[in-house]
Amino acid sequence: MEGLLTTNNVWMMICTALVFFMHTGFAFLEIGLTRQKNTINILFKNIFIITVGLLLYYIVGFNLMYPGFAEDSSGILGFAGFGFDAPLTAEGALDLTYNEGYTYWTDFLFQGMFAATAATIVSGAVAERMKIGAFMIFTVIYVGLIYPIAGSWKWGGGFLDQMGFYDFAGSTLVHSVGGWAALVAVYLLGSRIGKFDKEGKPQAIPGHNIPLATAGVLILWLGWFGFNGGSVLSADPELTSLTLVTTCLAAASGGVIAAFVNFLKYKNLDLTMFLNGILGGLVGITAGADVVTPESAIIIGGIAGSLIVFAVAFIDAIKLDDPVGAIAVHLICGIWGTLAVGIFSTNPEHSFLVQLIGVACYAGICIVSSFIIFFVLKKTTGIRVSEKEELEGLDAHEHGMDAYPDFRLNEH
Amino acid sequence: MEGLLTTNNVWMMICTALVFFMHTGFAFLEIGLTRQKNTINILFKNIFIITVGLLLYYIVGFNLMYPGFAEDSSGILGFAGFGFDAPLTAEGALDLTYNEGYTYWTDFLFQGMFAATAATIVSGAVAERMKIGAFMIFTVIYVGLIYPIAGSWKWGGGFLDQMGFYDFAGSTLVHSVGGWAALVAVYLLGSRIGKFDKEGKPQAIPGHNIPLATAGVLILWLGWFGFNGGSVLSADPELTSLTLVTTCLAAASGGVIAAFVNFLKYKNLDLTMFLNGILGGLVGITAGADVVTPESAIIIGGIAGSLIVFAVAFIDAIKLDDPVGAIAVHLICGIWGTLAVGIFSTNPEHSFLVQLIGVACYAGICIVSSFIIFFVLKKTTGIRVSEKEELEGLDAHEHGMDAYPDFRLNEH
Amino acid sequence: MEGLLTTNNVWMMICTALVFFMHTGFAFLEIGLTRQKNTINILFKNIFIITVGLLLYYIVGFNLMYPGFAEDSSGILGFAGFGFDAPLTAEGALDLTYNEGYTYWTDFLFQGMFAATAATIVSGAVAERMKIGAFMIFTVIYVGLIYPIAGSWKWGGGFLDQMGFYDFAGSTLVHSVGGWAALVAVYLLGSRIGKFDKEGKPQAIPGHNIPLATAGVLILWLGWFGFNGGSVLSADPELTSLTLVTTCLAAASGGVIAAFVNFLKYKNLDLTMFLNGILGGLVGITAGADVVTPESAIIIGGIAGSLIVFAVAFIDAIKLDDPVGAIAVHLICGIWGTLAVGIFSTNPEHSFLVQLIGVACYAGICIVSSFIIFFVLKKTTGIRVSEKEELEGLDAHEHGMDAYPDFRLNEH
Repeated sequence: MEGLLTTNNVWMMICTALVFFMHTGFAFLEIGLTRQKNTINILFKNIFIITVGLLLYYIVGFNLMYPGFAEDSSGILGFAGFGFDAPLTAEGALDLTYNEGYTYWTDFLFQGMFAATAATIVSGAVAERMKIGAFMIFTVIYVGLIYPIAGSWKWGGGFLDQMGFYDFAGSTLVHSVGGWAALVAVYLLGSRIGKFDKEGKPQAIPGHNIPLATAGVLILWLGWFGFNGGSVLSADPELTSLTLVTTCLAAASGGVIAAFVNFLKYKNLDLTMFLNGILGGLVGITAGADVVTPESAIIIGGIAGSLIVFAVAFIDAIKLDDPVGAIAVHLICGIWGTLAVGIFSTNPEHSFLVQLIGVACYAGICIVSSFIIFFVLKKTTGIRVSEKEELEGLDAHEHGMDAYPDFRLNEH
Repeated sequence: MEGLLTTNNVWMMICTALVFFMHTGFAFLEIGLTRQKNTINILFKNIFIITVGLLLYYIVGFNLMYPGFAEDSSGILGFAGFGFDAPLTAEGALDLTYNEGYTYWTDFLFQGMFAATAATIVSGAVAERMKIGAFMIFTVIYVGLIYPIAGSWKWGGGFLDQMGFYDFAGSTLVHSVGGWAALVAVYLLGSRIGKFDKEGKPQAIPGHNIPLATAGVLILWLGWFGFNGGSVLSADPELTSLTLVTTCLAAASGGVIAAFVNFLKYKNLDLTMFLNGILGGLVGITAGADVVTPESAIIIGGIAGSLIVFAVAFIDAIKLDDPVGAIAVHLICGIWGTLAVGIFSTNPEHSFLVQLIGVACYAGICIVSSFIIFFVLKKTTGIRVSEKEELEGLDAHEHGMDAYPDFRLNEH
Repeated sequence: MEGLLTTNNVWMMICTALVFFMHTGFAFLEIGLTRQKNTINILFKNIFIITVGLLLYYIVGFNLMYPGFAEDSSGILGFAGFGFDAPLTAEGALDLTYNEGYTYWTDFLFQGMFAATAATIVSGAVAERMKIGAFMIFTVIYVGLIYPIAGSWKWGGGFLDQMGFYDFAGSTLVHSVGGWAALVAVYLLGSRIGKFDKEGKPQAIPGHNIPLATAGVLILWLGWFGFNGGSVLSADPELTSLTLVTTCLAAASGGVIAAFVNFLKYKNLDLTMFLNGILGGLVGITAGADVVTPESAIIIGGIAGSLIVFAVAFIDAIKLDDPVGAIAVHLICGIWGTLAVGIFSTNPEHSFLVQLIGVACYAGICIVSSFIIFFVLKKTTGIRVSEKEELEGLDAHEHGMDAYPDFRLNEH
């Protein structure tokens, strides 16, 4: 028995490390798809999110997310107290009977690595024009309070869990939670100067470092081995390996279909769409990776991939400016993946309707809370940098630093 | 027993993730050693290979490679049917007695990650001048059909396996299979404009991003922990750890000897040769990593490293243009490593002659099949881009995108 | 029992891979924080260190570090002979009773990956002006002899171990050992041209690729999962997972506090300081990651983070030129972390005084030995490149190669 706990815990620690590595992937993706003059700013936000996110998860997040809802509670909000409360044996050692899949410490760290992800999604969407101070305040509130409270509804045993809602690794709990806030933020912020011309036609603002963007997606895919694989919460051989297969096939299928649909629509071999298709497939499979067949995973991923192409066009059409495609990837495919559980799950207890209710509840808390946060910030500190700063780049103004001082650069 | 399967399966899943990560290494290496104007094209090919490769391996590859040859078959070609055929228990759960080292799903995914590698090797060799459409068709056929059929001869229990041929992790089955096709492709494609001057003297065309090339090699080395370590097909403590030691020592020795021989020959400290020497050492040890002593591994790696220096010069001398040194690394060192098993193996049943026969058989199938594919493509779709496109870069023409739009670039 | 060894060994192999990956992190960090004209040189050094380091550790290092001190020895210097001496069973198989946590081969490889790290720390500090030949000689002696002899004092069971000195994963044995040599080297080398103006005021020489520097830090943090997690020397669920939590919280706290203190002092959001704060937190927690509470880890990391800000300013003030902040991160925080064990350890046997004695002993051997090596090199081969070479860049002169030939660059 102790041997199995040791093995399970090894797996969970590795998955934790892989999820941590995703922050490198997000950083590469976000800077790669934006302009060089805002690179330092994006990197600073990413580093801020992972460090402050972990500390906040220690202070309040873990115990907001896993409050141990009492049976007669509503399962909406609970709090088990500040900081750690590691279970100990009579001798003062860590009580290893806490869970057969991991120790208390591994539990905290794995979940803590997830917490920061939601804010990172927003970071990409608001890139190149948001005030760093306002973003930091948003991050503290959203990662510290909203994410764990919303998470408790399902993973903490709250009311949606009791209702039978299913979200294996977070198509909704992580990706849509970030995606809704990204949508609200992008709406309140407005588009970057030059994104839409006088007739309102969207203009391409090309990303400055596509090799890093590509590496970012590959690193994210790698990280998803841990994101989904670790969400089994043990090293169970059947479930973990099935999960990796469904995850990888959905990623592959999402990318290929996105590239193909894009080719049909625009007649070019678009690397960025290929990459976002992969991410869409990954987000889409995340809700049901352990309860669908590999064949279903290919379908789920493929639909996610084609959704990406249309969603990116639609977001442009409604004049929202999302520099990295975060809303298409994380919100649209997150919703799709959550609903797909209701269609493809091999578990007959999963229901499309309940999945839809779950999506709606998360839409509610995320839209309302992020609107309040961003609206208050807009009216107080302001959320958008000055036109001068936006044109000259946030790196020079907010950080006094250049990302590539030895290189000659184009101004735009 | 189930505990040991769980541990073995964890190891195999991690190795799978590491082999997946090698695609990031290949991408970095290939773009790093070529010109910026073809970066998007190379990245697109790499992303295409890993996604389509996985899907093809699901559709036909896995069952072509492991057809379960009947005892009276010739062991040359078998096919166990399309798609998955996961073994189930009477209750419908996955049958975990499939193998003590891994589940059916892990088996598929680990082998699937290998499949794409062969095409990636070709991608580097044909860089900067091959039509993307033709490359995509080649990839589909070579990864989908040739690689698994050739692989079945040894790993699928085919005739070479029955003959006693040994190739632990694929010096021949993966690296030479890619290397032979690279050789054929480079021969049929011709050299890049400017690679050889009017007297036929080779000209250096420097790679545009050496930091990424270096990181690529380090990531590939890291990936080799999984490539070789996972080829034990269990977490057997003795074999896995011996394998990692022989792998790392051969890599170190390959790099140091290549840099040293290069220094003696050309009097400069050539980073690229150092890097290719590391890769040569890794490819060289791959056939026998579990059956040679660490001391032999240092010798095998060192010989591989010196072979690299001479092979790169030789390939230049015969007017073949291999931008990233793929033929020297994967073909020459792949052959060397396979033969080295016949010399250094601690298993007395391994024979130099049988290893030589194996090498010859793979030369046969790979040269013939890749020649047919590329020749037909050359006569139909064409395999080479126009001179204008080659000079202006494939990124602009095939993809309509720049890799580094914010940077001022040199035209060449 | 064999099952537990298998699990432990899997964990140790993964940690070995993660520590290996740290060399990618160091390479990215060092080139990112220096100028592009010296990039190839730094990468060459890093590749040299990891390859030659492993080979040296095979030849002499492992047996100098773990000599099996006899009971009546002084515990200062021992040597168990050249090369490997793998324990075998009567049947000639590897004796798996060697250790319950890992095999002989894993032991070698894990420790071998540590060995190279010390020289890498020096590499960063001497960047942009040291002769590559002299650095290579230094590396061979320091990694091959000094590091393992110094290491034997504690980890090899030498006199400091017998005295009760504690250094879990190497705040002193790895980081300070590198840091002291960095200090000596920087002192003997002198500062880069232009680092101090005529009045002696320090001038910023900005690093040329901040995305890679940032990725380097994230990769180092990831590698630290293995560096500290593997130093448990088994997969013990309580100790490994506690170690990862203390490691990550110290990193987070170090970064946040460094950025905050820097903001109070200089009123800007300095990404480089944030990154070095993370590294300082990681170095600081390394000595006691398994014997302090997570709360203490936050304090240790936070103090390390604030130390970084003041140490960087102090090193500038005394006119030492350390381009990447290696002395602040590895020496100052290494000392702090070692002493912190004497303050925060939950093990009552750990004593501040003994920790201080340990720090002093390592100061002694490292300062003396590195001074002798660098001084002899200075008087013979010379350690500093010519002014012309320094101004034009080491890449062109020592390697005849450019890191970014397709990009237009600024001269400085």
